[in-house]
Amino acid sequence: MNAMSEGGAARDPVERLRRGETSAVETMRFYLRRIEARENEVRAFAYLAPEAAIAAAEKADAAQASGGPLHGLPVAVKDIIDTADMPTEFGGEIFAGRRPRRDATIVSRLRSAGAIVVGKAVTSQYALFVPGPTRNPRDLARTPGGSSSGSAAAVAAGFVPVALGTQTNGSIIRPASYCGVVGFKPSLGLLPRTGVLRHAPLVDHPGVFARTVADAAIVIDAIGGEDAEDALSRPLPGSLLAAANAEGPPPKLGFALGPFEDRADPATRAAFAVFIAGLPVKAEEVALGPEFAKAEGTMSDLMCAGVAESLGPDIDRAKDRVPERVLRIVAEGRALSALRLMQAWTRRDALRVDATRLIAPYDAVLTFASSGPAPVASEGTGDPIFATLWSLIGAPAMSLPLMRAANGLPIGVQAVGAPGRDLDLVRATAWLMRVGAR
Amino acid sequence: MNAMSEGGAARDPVERLRRGETSAVETMRFYLRRIEARENEVRAFAYLAPEAAIAAAEKADAAQASGGPLHGLPVAVKDIIDTADMPTEFGGEIFAGRRPRRDATIVSRLRSAGAIVVGKAVTSQYALFVPGPTRNPRDLARTPGGSSSGSAAAVAAGFVPVALGTQTNGSIIRPASYCGVVGFKPSLGLLPRTGVLRHAPLVDHPGVFARTVADAAIVIDAIGGEDAEDALSRPLPGSLLAAANAEGPPPKLGFALGPFEDRADPATRAAFAVFIAGLPVKAEEVALGPEFAKAEGTMSDLMCAGVAESLGPDIDRAKDRVPERVLRIVAEGRALSALRLMQAWTRRDALRVDATRLIAPYDAVLTFASSGPAPVASEGTGDPIFATLWSLIGAPAMSLPLMRAANGLPIGVQAVGAPGRDLDLVRATAWLMRVGAR
Repeated sequence: MNAMSEGGAARDPVERLRRGETSAVETMRFYLRRIEARENEVRAFAYLAPEAAIAAAEKADAAQASGGPLHGLPVAVKDIIDTADMPTEFGGEIFAGRRPRRDATIVSRLRSAGAIVVGKAVTSQYALFVPGPTRNPRDLARTPGGSSSGSAAAVAAGFVPVALGTQTNGSIIRPASYCGVVGFKPSLGLLPRTGVLRHAPLVDHPGVFARTVADAAIVIDAIGGEDAEDALSRPLPGSLLAAANAEGPPPKLGFALGPFEDRADPATRAAFAVFIAGLPVKAEEVALGPEFAKAEGTMSDLMCAGVAESLGPDIDRAKDRVPERVLRIVAEGRALSALRLMQAWTRRDALRVDATRLIAPYDAVLTFASSGPAPVASEGTGDPIFATLWSLIGAPAMSLPLMRAANGLPIGVQAVGAPGRDLDLVRATAWLMRVGAR
Repeated sequence: MNAMSEGGAARDPVERLRRGETSAVETMRFYLRRIEARENEVRAFAYLAPEAAIAAAEKADAAQASGGPLHGLPVAVKDIIDTADMPTEFGGEIFAGRRPRRDATIVSRLRSAGAIVVGKAVTSQYALFVPGPTRNPRDLARTPGGSSSGSAAAVAAGFVPVALGTQTNGSIIRPASYCGVVGFKPSLGLLPRTGVLRHAPLVDHPGVFARTVADAAIVIDAIGGEDAEDALSRPLPGSLLAAANAEGPPPKLGFALGPFEDRADPATRAAFAVFIAGLPVKAEEVALGPEFAKAEGTMSDLMCAGVAESLGPDIDRAKDRVPERVLRIVAEGRALSALRLMQAWTRRDALRVDATRLIAPYDAVLTFASSGPAPVASEGTGDPIFATLWSLIGAPAMSLPLMRAANGLPIGVQAVGAPGRDLDLVRATAWLMRVGAR
């Protein structure tokens, strides 16, 4: 982990661990103390295994010489990602006690690289729209966003330096924005989905929450790349960490307001304009016309059909214990024709071509990550719309904690790249974090 | 083209062209004479442009120094693959006179590499099951197979050394088997589909017909690799030509009879057993159990849904001019639910994992390419079943002209590899052609 340069603090426990100035056990105890202090109010974890984490850290210390690139790193894993040694319950009552037989590919790669899974992070129910108990560590009256609620909150609360999450529509970008952390969803296929609850194979993306771009990058370097069991998985394009640490000229930046601009609140739109104007390099405006509004309905068709297939049979067995909103998604999926699903797929491919053509001239195109700061918890997990198009087309997207609302709450800036151009996006976002943190 | 080593003949016109012993114009005239002599009975072409081909050859000769790896190579292109300078009519009356605005990606790459498109090869109507006029050059009473009928026949008749075709179910492997040529469908995504009539994005594969493995390889090296407009396209894994020409130990071979063995005729099953027993290395039996029979219905659902979406609207406008069998496929697709389509996709992914696990220990697994030699033309284009599983899972597959029926007609041996392992398959098939041609 030579990832802390942006964050600065040489006393950062992860940086000290990397330098061998501290042990995996000491590091783990540091984070467990933080969890102990605030977990009762944040409620980031669906399952927590402190003793096992300490035992794993002891083992890591004993085998330090053979430690991988993530040696001793404490990680939280969203509860829709399978772990063989912990329950994986999808945030849903009907899966209470579910114990996968094996780790998801990204979890087994995490462990092979030396990381230690501290616990399972709360997800919205079935990674859909009904929130779990997690609150936003920046303001406990507010939602952390969803569906990767616990993953974002755990990093924001300093419970773990890194957490795995997933995004089908807006489940990484939005919580990262609300919680004031980096949230990175690489290009479709870079992180394999084997052992992750399926919504819709064309749009399911694992991703990483971290405090810095480099921390996210080093984790993806360790867990990304092809997996024979995920037909849409792809090889890594090179070292994302090297891209994060690269020196060089400023990136070529664009910015886009897009067809959903009206769904961002006025103060956030004003803050975004100030942010763009204040950049040390000029960002060119990218005109994302009204035709891209089709992304929303297209995403909905793909998700509803996928969820109906993936979760439908289990939900049928226990309808009375499943929230109405989830039942409605399954019912909608079941009402769709194959023709309509094929049309959604074709429209998705066309939007991918058109959007890629517009953003490809830039290393990163900046846009809204959320409609504003975190809403109060009673309003739900917030609007995923600003992530929708980029999830739909499989583009790499990252939320960077670079804006702040009048009430002091964080608001993310979303940086997106052309599909497959993750290295350029990482280079650009690491640069943005450096200049944004001045 | 240093591709002729297997075929031997140093007087081979393509080999002479490559060595600079002859010009592109002389080469083109050689092939055009062959076309002139037999096209009236073979009917491989839906459109033929001899004058334009000669003009392109003259231009190639004038610019020889800058000629690409396919300098002057005459190629036939299946009539569902767009060409900006020739009609592309999908073998269907309702598309008569259709003129694409631009070349398909694989056609523009062909031309950039120096190849010359001689004409458009006949396809079954809409690349489905209703045959066009093409006959099998090995026996004019018989079908060349379909849907890439003209492409296979053109290479078999010596009209062109190479032709582009496509396979969604069995449209390359079967005609290659019937016509006694090499037919190669690389892994899904290696050849992009931009500008190719869409059936179903998960299973549409372009491919190449040639006389040798190396000829097919050099063409794929030139036209393969990622395309921003095809979301499922992938980079080439390396040089397929180098793999075809590689020396080295014999490949690790398996053979599989599979759940559809009964649909191969007894003589072909006997010939296949003799072929396997006669190999200079032992091929191990791979048990493809009855569960793989699900491939057929799964492929049908994916194809019907895709065709309904892709061709449905055009077909609706001219129902009276569309064959009943095509209307039925569209109607079946429209009757499917999104749920059923998602289930087909999930089953496809599971079959891919299971089949890959079985074949991954081998460089190539040998199996039937067709149920026998080409049927008489009145029986249709033959049974695609032996290609179905490998198309469904996106595995590389090649038909090699290594068997012969009692009546002297060719029968292919199909060699398949694990998805993405095209280099191993090419190395193995080039070796098989060398030992099979002893």
